[in-house]
Amino acid sequence: MKEAELIDRLRRIATHPGARDLRDDAAVLDGLVITHDSVAEGVHFFPTDPPASVGWKLVAVNLSDLAAKGAQPIAALLSFSLSHRDWDFGVIDGIEAACETYGVSLIGGDTIALLAGAPRVYGVTAIGRAAEKVPSRAGGTPGDRLWVAGSLGDSAAGLARLIDDPAATGTLVDIYRRPIPLLEMGQSLAAHATAMMDVSDGLLVDLARLCSASGCGAEVDLDSLPLSGVFVVERGQDRNARLFAATGGDDYALLAALPADLDPVSLSLPDAPTLCCIGRLVAGSGFMLHDRDGDVPLPERLGYEHRASRSPVDDRL
Amino acid sequence: MKEAELIDRLRRIATHPGARDLRDDAAVLDGLVITHDSVAEGVHFFPTDPPASVGWKLVAVNLSDLAAKGAQPIAALLSFSLSHRDWDFGVIDGIEAACETYGVSLIGGDTIALLAGAPRVYGVTAIGRAAEKVPSRAGGTPGDRLWVAGSLGDSAAGLARLIDDPAATGTLVDIYRRPIPLLEMGQSLAAHATAMMDVSDGLLVDLARLCSASGCGAEVDLDSLPLSGVFVVERGQDRNARLFAATGGDDYALLAALPADLDPVSLSLPDAPTLCCIGRLVAGSGFMLHDRDGDVPLPERLGYEHRASRSPVDDRL
Repeated sequence: MKEAELIDRLRRIATHPGARDLRDDAAVLDGLVITHDSVAEGVHFFPTDPPASVGWKLVAVNLSDLAAKGAQPIAALLSFSLSHRDWDFGVIDGIEAACETYGVSLIGGDTIALLAGAPRVYGVTAIGRAAEKVPSRAGGTPGDRLWVAGSLGDSAAGLARLIDDPAATGTLVDIYRRPIPLLEMGQSLAAHATAMMDVSDGLLVDLARLCSASGCGAEVDLDSLPLSGVFVVERGQDRNARLFAATGGDDYALLAALPADLDPVSLSLPDAPTLCCIGRLVAGSGFMLHDRDGDVPLPERLGYEHRASRSPVDDRL
Repeated sequence: MKEAELIDRLRRIATHPGARDLRDDAAVLDGLVITHDSVAEGVHFFPTDPPASVGWKLVAVNLSDLAAKGAQPIAALLSFSLSHRDWDFGVIDGIEAACETYGVSLIGGDTIALLAGAPRVYGVTAIGRAAEKVPSRAGGTPGDRLWVAGSLGDSAAGLARLIDDPAATGTLVDIYRRPIPLLEMGQSLAAHATAMMDVSDGLLVDLARLCSASGCGAEVDLDSLPLSGVFVVERGQDRNARLFAATGGDDYALLAALPADLDPVSLSLPDAPTLCCIGRLVAGSGFMLHDRDGDVPLPERLGYEHRASRSPVDDRL
């Protein structure tokens, strides 16, 4: 069925203000920021992926949602489908590595048996301590400048390699499998951002959500997108490469709207990643792309669609 | 793989005291009680079950964990695998009914697509407000009397009917499909219980866990188990019927250890269900059953094993 219809239906139950009408990356409750993401074999990961990378990514994508709200991770609950020993321990190795790296304690969850042959499914509920301000997707105003922390397209390029050859290796594949949640950057930006979210399904589709929540349109300069050196070596940096980076997804970069008069240099930001201004919010609901050669027609696909029946909006209720 | 081994491995990541060493029904964090349970098609529910009952039970079994800690439910996050419209809306009808009945707001979660034909999987993270005291499984001491609130065996008898005939109906089937979390009773008992948990996998296996956590043994009088009239009509009340009730599982009754000198009549408890004294904790680690005819040998199977590859300890990390 269509997620949009389902989520509309679920909004009837989302009565708590901290639910943020199911339109944000995470919920806010009693000074905590709480999010849940699940992954399924064959849809969100390959059975040929190293199990430790599956465990790492499971935790990291949830922490990326906390990063987007400026929260400090504390704890996680885990839903774990039992498989065979080597695989299961491998997944847990990855979960442990991510939990230790980011100071997260496992506090509960459950293990479930699936029918023989059923694709594995894992879920994590991540809980963070809220800062004084927890930016939503909805606070942006026309004139705000749009900033991206983290590079775009690496992960999608890594995934493309794996689709061509499941045995592919290299930096791009590593980035696809082991995303880094930008926690410190998110915490630094949270106090100043009028709106913030993580880029998980593709810059353009995620920006469209931020615009929709904020009641704004946006202008984006494709030439200003942060591309990594390794991405440029792989894909180039022409318009097509930039559109690929803007729509690929799985970036776990941060997208923030900051007041136009705020110079991020004046903030005490982490040294890395670089913060890039990619455009601005504008009045209305239009969505305009341009580069040095002029206006760029909006691509048909704004984000993630390569994953089986996954639609661009299914990462979040 | 074996859950026990996996959970031992996960304990290395369970560094927060609120994790309770992954040995309790729920975690305690910042005045909140938090739990997560997932269910899978073909393992925890039948594809022939009415979808609204699947949604109801998904929420109710999580709230039962909160009840066992005396918490007041507030919010839930939902992990939902997309299927077809009628089924999905049916499941959500049941989720909504349970959330409305017990004052729970949905605050987040995610929807995921599974590969075509994969069994459906759902998860709920339930969050409740902690009372002043949150009883664990570990506080029981020799001499405490053991009490059960709620009747035992109804649900297992309903399940047995459904296994014989997927079209079976009746009270026992209803109880299997739509358990009632004993929230008010749990809140009333929490301040006084030295140890408390819900009975989800069978009285004997769950009591064995409480004993293990508390470092005690137990004596149980099988004749004192609370059996419902409808159970007795279906199964009788001889020793075999009582052993069936004590090992069936899916009861979502509460099992509490109370100090021997405390008379529950002196507490302001809800009118229903009746609280029954079923035995007491004793020193050591032994586990003794008796009834009017004398000692009862411990059955080989203390709890839930009818669900495909589910083992008696997989309901909780």
